This record gives sequence, structure tokens and C-alpha cells, in this order.
Amino acid sequence: MPDSGKIHNVSELPIATDSLQLDFQTHPDRYRHWKLTSSGAIARLDMDVDENGAMFPGYELKLNSYDIGVDIELYDAIQRLRFEHPEVKTVVVSSNKPTMFCAGANIRMLAGASHGHKVNFCKFTNETRNAIEDAGEFSGQRYLCALSGTAAGGGYELALAMDYLILIDDGNAAVSLPEIPLLAVLPGTGGLTRIVDKRKVRRDLADVFCTVEEGVKGRRAVDWRLVDETVPGSQFVQRVAERAEEMSRMSDRPDTAGGVQLTRLSRTIEADSIEYDWLGLSIDRTNRNVTLHIRAPDSEAPDSLEHAIALGDRFWPLALARQLDDALLHLRFNEPDIGTIIITSAGAAGTVKGHDAFLQRHRDNWLIREIVLYWKRTLKRLDLTSRTSFALVEPGSCFAGLLAELLFAVDRSYMLEGQFEDDDTPAPTIMLSENNFGPLPMSNGLTRLETRFLGEPGSVAGARDHIGRELDAALAAELGLVTFTPDDIDWEDEIRMLLEERASFSPDALVGMEANLRFAGPETMETKIFGRLTAWQNWIFQRPNAVSDAGALRRYGTGLRPEYDKDRV
Amino acid sequence: MPDSGKIHNVSELPIATDSLQLDFQTHPDRYRHWKLTSSGAIARLDMDVDENGAMFPGYELKLNSYDIGVDIELYDAIQRLRFEHPEVKTVVVSSNKPTMFCAGANIRMLAGASHGHKVNFCKFTNETRNAIEDAGEFSGQRYLCALSGTAAGGGYELALAMDYLILIDDGNAAVSLPEIPLLAVLPGTGGLTRIVDKRKVRRDLADVFCTVEEGVKGRRAVDWRLVDETVPGSQFVQRVAERAEEMSRMSDRPDTAGGVQLTRLSRTIEADSIEYDWLGLSIDRTNRNVTLHIRAPDSEAPDSLEHAIALGDRFWPLALARQLDDALLHLRFNEPDIGTIIITSAGAAGTVKGHDAFLQRHRDNWLIREIVLYWKRTLKRLDLTSRTSFALVEPGSCFAGLLAELLFAVDRSYMLEGQFEDDDTPAPTIMLSENNFGPLPMSNGLTRLETRFLGEPGSVAGARDHIGRELDAALAAELGLVTFTPDDIDWEDEIRMLLEERASFSPDALVGMEANLRFAGPETMETKIFGRLTAWQNWIFQRPNAVSDAGALRRYGTGLRPEYDKDRV
Repeated sequence: MPDSGKIHNVSELPIATDSLQLDFQTHPDRYRHWKLTSSGAIARLDMDVDENGAMFPGYELKLNSYDIGVDIELYDAIQRLRFEHPEVKTVVVSSNKPTMFCAGANIRMLAGASHGHKVNFCKFTNETRNAIEDAGEFSGQRYLCALSGTAAGGGYELALAMDYLILIDDGNAAVSLPEIPLLAVLPGTGGLTRIVDKRKVRRDLADVFCTVEEGVKGRRAVDWRLVDETVPGSQFVQRVAERAEEMSRMSDRPDTAGGVQLTRLSRTIEADSIEYDWLGLSIDRTNRNVTLHIRAPDSEAPDSLEHAIALGDRFWPLALARQLDDALLHLRFNEPDIGTIIITSAGAAGTVKGHDAFLQRHRDNWLIREIVLYWKRTLKRLDLTSRTSFALVEPGSCFAGLLAELLFAVDRSYMLEGQFEDDDTPAPTIMLSENNFGPLPMSNGLTRLETRFLGEPGSVAGARDHIGRELDAALAAELGLVTFTPDDIDWEDEIRMLLEERASFSPDALVGMEANLRFAGPETMETKIFGRLTAWQNWIFQRPNAVSDAGALRRYGTGLRPEYDKDRV
Repeated sequence: MPDSGKIHNVSELPIATDSLQLDFQTHPDRYRHWKLTSSGAIARLDMDVDENGAMFPGYELKLNSYDIGVDIELYDAIQRLRFEHPEVKTVVVSSNKPTMFCAGANIRMLAGASHGHKVNFCKFTNETRNAIEDAGEFSGQRYLCALSGTAAGGGYELALAMDYLILIDDGNAAVSLPEIPLLAVLPGTGGLTRIVDKRKVRRDLADVFCTVEEGVKGRRAVDWRLVDETVPGSQFVQRVAERAEEMSRMSDRPDTAGGVQLTRLSRTIEADSIEYDWLGLSIDRTNRNVTLHIRAPDSEAPDSLEHAIALGDRFWPLALARQLDDALLHLRFNEPDIGTIIITSAGAAGTVKGHDAFLQRHRDNWLIREIVLYWKRTLKRLDLTSRTSFALVEPGSCFAGLLAELLFAVDRSYMLEGQFEDDDTPAPTIMLSENNFGPLPMSNGLTRLETRFLGEPGSVAGARDHIGRELDAALAAELGLVTFTPDDIDWEDEIRMLLEERASFSPDALVGMEANLRFAGPETMETKIFGRLTAWQNWIFQRPNAVSDAGALRRYGTGLRPEYDKDRV
């Protein structure tokens, strides 16, 4: 675990985790904590955390421990590997530190962080790890974790997200989840779930593993299914290289396609607004909501795949996904008291439809596949954002295909029946496409329409019969695709009251409600991580046994033993 | 919601929920809150809560609101309906209060209860509701909820557990989940999960429903799938009777079998021990653990079904299940700081095996079916008990069949390899039966062995090949059926260190760990309720927006508005 080199005084806490505006954009040229290199089908991502590169003052990132700054770089690297490196089939993740792969989340940071930062930090960390698994499962880009040293806590949880784990057998290197004995918190960023649900470690052995500070090494780590292989130091480098080659042969990624560079987003942040190319945000601080204004492309879809590839990150579906993704992360970390996200759209539905059809037509191309998968991840990020989400379908809007999917991601949608008085913009319509029926599943493995219509599966087929048709409010309501369809007389009052009412509720109760109502139907490893595991961790993150002055998180490294309330609840 | 008749002063809090030793045994003759009557295939269970019958001082049970005392009677009634009334095929649940079916958990009690009591109260409430669903699904005894008045909050959650809901259409009666707008907590005893996963209410309509204080009534309640039927007052009684008859015709329960009376358990409680007929508990307060000594039957299995029926609740499998069930509830509520449960057994494995085989042979008989289903529920109660559980398999033990299942329910098992020195009791063995391969599934829908061997499904078949054989420690370990097999030299130290170490960990961290490691594999509605929903509710139960002096739970009914921290986390 980190920080063992220096004993901090407890009174240094708290850490000012809410003091900075976080920026999720970075570039390998500016990484402080990771080295990304590639050669043909194999890329290397080496963790080499700069001790003095912490995001906030008050702690040092010893022993490859991480904070949000380290994780932002990791997220960036994973995104770039998919878009900029179509030729990379295996990513070998390792550490440049001797004896330590990664010591997990920095304890001093966790101990001092606000509850909100802890929760959002863990969520983002989880999403990034899911993206690693997504790359292997859907994009032919697999991760090999080369553990030349110990992976402890969050370090092992990071390893667990990868497709194959090789642990050096040197008598010292171990994998461990020491959170419970040492810190009185859970291995809560996927650890507990992945050991029993992904690695399928037997539950009694998992119980032992999670209570043994020093972890498990060598042969036993393989026998217990904690790693896939263990190799003596003399053969380690060679075996990692061999295995990387083997994994590459399983991939369907192209050998020679040129990648698409992800350039810095054009973004203007003002006090109450943000402007991207295809997305604007306007914040109403009185009612604590933000409106996302999504804009249709200003031109027809490209006439060829080559043209789309040449557009690169200016190609509208990719550009908009990046902007939405960035906006959601910005809102989560930098605007915690904005409780409601309102989604609107404007522009020519025809150009949206054209782009949507283009994605379907070319879905077998590596880049188009990446773009659709990125939309999938971004929509999941919206599902998992702990803010209320509403959509407003007004005249001039363009909720077609990909954008219509937003109507099924939000908590409620309101569609104007007819036109506004004194405005000759035609009554709004929405339009479905094949993209609403398969390529964009939720974390629960179902499409949003399947989840929506769990109680009436026939309605999914009913909606599908209407693909490509302009659906007005009456028909959209009849098909169950929108929540309410007020007319011009009621619209303004109804929306105003809706937003005022929502702002009056306890934010915590809404977080809990939305986390339950949004994920009906089956649970998957992914939803278990965000539901069961995260909710228990958040509970523990508030319990005095962990976070009081005498709690284990605060006392770690001070030489003082934590004091526990011994009652079980 | 309850208590609207009287405004209490906030300073009356807290309620002394941890001051009483709760007793889970009761009898219809002593009920204060329910009336249980039956006539042929139909029973009536009428809620008529005694305002002055609260379990603890400090609140009144207005408007059919409930506390643990009301729930203990409900649990008792449900158990008796299954065992004492084989002829009852439909249970009609209604209220004797005008205009109100049930107002939910008493808010004053919730606001003043300790965190531990709230959590355990909700868990027991959930288990009882699951038992209602279990009766309909597996035992042919279905519940019809006759809503002649409003079902609010926990009152509607209780209704949601039933098989069919009829709501009176009188312009007033509604179903509602007003927890979020009024109390800043969740409809957390099954409500959020059951509306989207059982009733399959569309998620946007569920969002509306859960934020509308007054709820939904009449036709809309049917359209939104919140109830199955709505009937005018003039036809209500007749329609309920008709529907009860229809439901009875779906049942396979016997028409004329005589029931088995559940007599009061013989139980002696001392300071550090409890004795039942087939179970003894001894508490080690220094190391905060309790040992459950399970005893084999002292005679062979009955020679006929008639004999078993004549034994009634003295029949060993039924008697032991009742004693285990009672002991678990006692430990949860009355011994909160006993963190570890150690399970041992003693006696003739042959008589256990004989009784186990008897249950399999006669599994189609209504009583035997009930006994096996009761074992299923009791084992689930152990799975869901937030204490560490270990089993010790020592010479003289009798872990066969039903009792072997306990080895797969605990967090770890230790089996002595060989004999103890200076003791000629033979080395212990364990024995599997068909009861370990189907009739006793966990909440996740899998057997404990299927869950245990998720990563190596062949091991389930491997174990099955060994049904009926005496398995010594070496073979049990090879088959993966026990965790560790120390020999005489190591046994004492290893167990002592195990118990000391466990007692040193944070109880909260262990609660969270066990809640995740125990339920690998699929999630069901039941596991979602205990995992996702409960964990979020427990989180909210600690948040100031709900439970601080200015929080909504505390301020409800005072005329003061709650004050909320507006940040979303």
C-alpha cells in the first residue's frame, strides 16, 4: 500500500478535492504518470507515477498509487489506443517501478477527500476499467497485465479488468486486496465483484484472500484463479512477449489502417455556459439545472467511408460523442450542485438521419465500429451519472436514431403536442433507427427499449415497425416512447413546475431512486459493480469505522490503531 | 403517511430501539395488530394495528403504520398459514381501518431508531415479503391484496409482494410511494425493485410515481401496472371473493389434510447461552462469537409419512429449522456485537442421513414440501445475516445432506484431517445428498454448490458423483467442499487465530465484503432487493439530508421544512 515511506500527521487532512476545476483532456505528450509506446500490433502502457504529480496538495503518489489525475491519463490512453491505433491488438500494461506494479488509490487522498469526490472518483475509475474490458470484448484490442511486482488494492483491481494476468514468480510479488484488514473499506472499484464473478474465485478462498494483508503469490495465485499464469523472473519478459503475440492473433483489428487523431476539443467555458462545436451547455443556478443543446450536423453525411475517415475527429458522430462525454465528466466533478440535466436538440433531422444511416451501413469498418462503441459507452456514462435527466422534444428538434436513444436514456421525456403559438416551426417529430434496437445496449445487457418495455415486450416490436417514420407526439406517446405530451397551453407551466419540484427533493434520495429505477431487468457484472458493490462502498465511506478521526482510513500510516464500533448492522 | 394526527416534538427522539430483547415467537391468540381467520380454501388476514401497541415507547402506530412488533405478527401468520392450514389456497389481505390499507413503516419510529435497528428491521421486513412470494410460487398458497383504502409507502410495498392487487375505485383510495418527496429516503423495502422488476412499470412512469406524494388511483393505477384491477366500492367485496375463488382453483394444495400446529419453542436463555431441543448456542463475549451446536436426531427417521405427520412440529427437520430460524433472528436483533457465527454439529450421521432421505422420498407430500421450503428460507436467512459464518467439522460431527448444506452457506469451513490426539472418536467425514443439488437454492437462483463452483462447473458433477459416500478431509478438500483441513497439531492455533483476526476487523467492512462475495453469479429480484436497493437505502439512512436534526425523516410532521445539502454525489 502507498505512503508507507512517510508518516503524515492526521491533522493534515482534509484534502481540498473540491477546490479545482478538473480537466479531462490531456495528451500523451503531457502525461506525468504513464508512458504509451507502440510497435506494430503491440502497445506498451507503463505506469510510472510521478510522486510529486498529485492533483491536489497534501499527499504524494508513492509506489505507483493513483489519484484522479493518474486516472484521467489512463482514460485518455485507452481512448487513443482505440482511435489512434487501429493496428494495436494487444496492450501490455506494466510498471516502471521495481517490485511494485501499483499500490492502488492513494490512501492519504482518499482519507482526506470529500465524500462526493470519493464517490465520483471511484465511478470514473470503474468506467475506465469497464472500457478496458469493452476493448477486448468488442474491439479486438486486448489487455495483458504484466505484473513484474506487487499489485495491491486498487492496483490489483486495475489488473482484474484486463484480459490476461501474468505474475512474476520471484518469491515477493503478490496480488492482494488488503482494504478490509488495513483500511476498513472495500476493494470497491470492481474488486469484490470481479474476483467472484469474472475470475470466479471460490467464495471461501475469496474470503481468505480479501482478509490477508500480504495477499497471495506464486503457484497459489494461479490455483485460486487470481492470475492466469506465474513465471520466473528469468523468463518473464520473454513469456509476456510471447503471450502478447498469441493474444494479437485472436484480434480482428486491421493491420495497416491509419488511425484517427483525437485533437484537443474546442471548448469555451464561461461562468454559466460551455460551448463545444456541436453541443452547448447553459446552466440555471437558481433551479440547479443545466440544459444540453445538441446540434445536428450542418451538412449531409459523407459520401464514402474514405471521406468519413478523412474527416477524422471532425466527423459529427465522433465529435459529438467526445463533446458529450467531456460535458458529463465536467458536470460530475465541477458542478456537483447542478442536479438536473435537460437534453434538447436542434437542427435538420435529415442530416442526423443521414449520419445515423451511414454508421449502420459501414458498421463493419474499424473506425465506425469504434464510434458506435464510443456512443455506447457515453450513453452508459449518462445512465450512470447521478443527476436527474429529462429530455424536451420541441419544434425544431432532431431526435432521430442515435439522438432518439437519448430519449430512452433519460428519466422522463416531454414532447410538445403540436406547435407553439406564434411560431410556425412545425410540430416536433422523432424517428427511430436500427441503432435503437441493438448496437447500444445498457450496462444490463439489454437495449434501452427492451428495458423500457420489460412489461410489454410486444411494444419493442411495435416500435421497430415504425423505424424511419416521423412520429408525432400522439403516435410517440401511443408507442410508449415519450413520457408526457403537453400542448402549447400547458407546456411552459408543466416544465417549470417539473424543474422546481425536482430541485426541491433531497439529492441523496434522488441518487438512490434513479440508481434503482434505471436498471430494471438482468444484472451483469457491470451493473453489480455500480449497484451492489458501489452502494455498499458508499455506505462504508460514511461509517465512522472508516472515516472518523479514529477510523482506519484516517489512522493508516500513523502508527495508531483504528477504533471500531463493534456492532454489526 | 402515519402520525399526521399528532405533531411530536423533534426532541422526543431517539427511540430506544436497542433497549429490548425482541422475541419472535407469538401466536394468533396474542396478536395485537392482525386478525387471522379462515374458512375452507380462503383465509383472511386483516391488518388492524393497535395504535397503542408500539414495540417501543415514543410513538403511536396510527393509520395502520407498522414497527417490528407488527411485522413479527405478520411473519408468524405467514408461517402458520403454510403449516397449520394446508387447506388454505388463497390468503386475502385487507385492512379493518376505513380509507387506509397501510401507511407504511412508522416514521417516528424510523426517525428515532438506531441505524442498526433500521437496517435489521428492513431486512426482516424484506424476508417476510419474500416469504409471501415464495408461498405463491412454490407452495400453492397465493396472496390477494384487497385494497379498500390507500396503500402508502411501506404499505404499498407490502401489497407489491402479493400475487394480485385489487384497488377500490372510490375517487380516494390510491397507491403511493411518497418516501422521496416527503421523507428523503427510498421506498427501500422492495418498493423500487418490485415496481420495475416485478410489476415492470415503465421506468419514466415509475419516476413520476415515486415523486408524486399523493400517488396514483383508479384507472391510471391499472394502466401503469401498479395494481391488477380497480373496482367500484359497490362491487368490491364481491369481486375480491370471486377473484379469491379463481386463485384457489390454481392451487395444488390438499383440500382436507390436517395441519401441523406450531407450538411454542422450548427455549432456555441464559446470559451467554441458549438451549433449544436440537440446537445450543454458546457465546464467547471476549472474542465476540457464538457457536451453534446442532444435534442429530436421537432416533431413526419415521417409518411412514403418517408417523412423520403425527410427530408434527417435533419431527426433527421441522423442529431444527424453527430453532435455527429463531436463533438467527435472536442474534441479529439482540446480540448485535457478536460478529461471528461458528457452526458445529454432533450426533449420529446415520440418523441425519435417514431423515434427509425421508424428506427426498416424500417430497411430494404437502408437509414435507413445506419443511424443505422452510429449510430453503432459513438457509437464505443465514446467507443474509450480516455476521461472518464459519463451520468446524470435527470428530463426532454429522454434516450430512441438509446439514452438509450449512458447509456451503458459511464463509469458510475447517475440517479436521484425522483424529484429535488422546481422543478415539473417528476422524470426521461429511456426506452429500440430492438435497445439496436442487431443492435449496440461494436467493440468486443457483444452488450453493453451483455458486461455489461458478469457475469450474465440472466440480458440481464431481461432487454429485460422491452422493451418499463418507468423505474424509482429504477427499472433501480435493472435491473443493471445504476450505482448509488442518490436522491435530495445527487445529487449535489455527482456529484461535482465525477467530481473533476476524474479531479485529471493522464490522462494517466485513458486512460489505460478505454481501458481495456471497452472491456471485446471477442476480434476481430478491438479490437486487438485498444488494442494490438495501445498500443504497442504508447509505441514505446515514445521510444528513434524511437523518440529521434538520433532515426530512426528523422534521416530518413538525411543520418545519427539511434542509438539504444540494450537492449530488
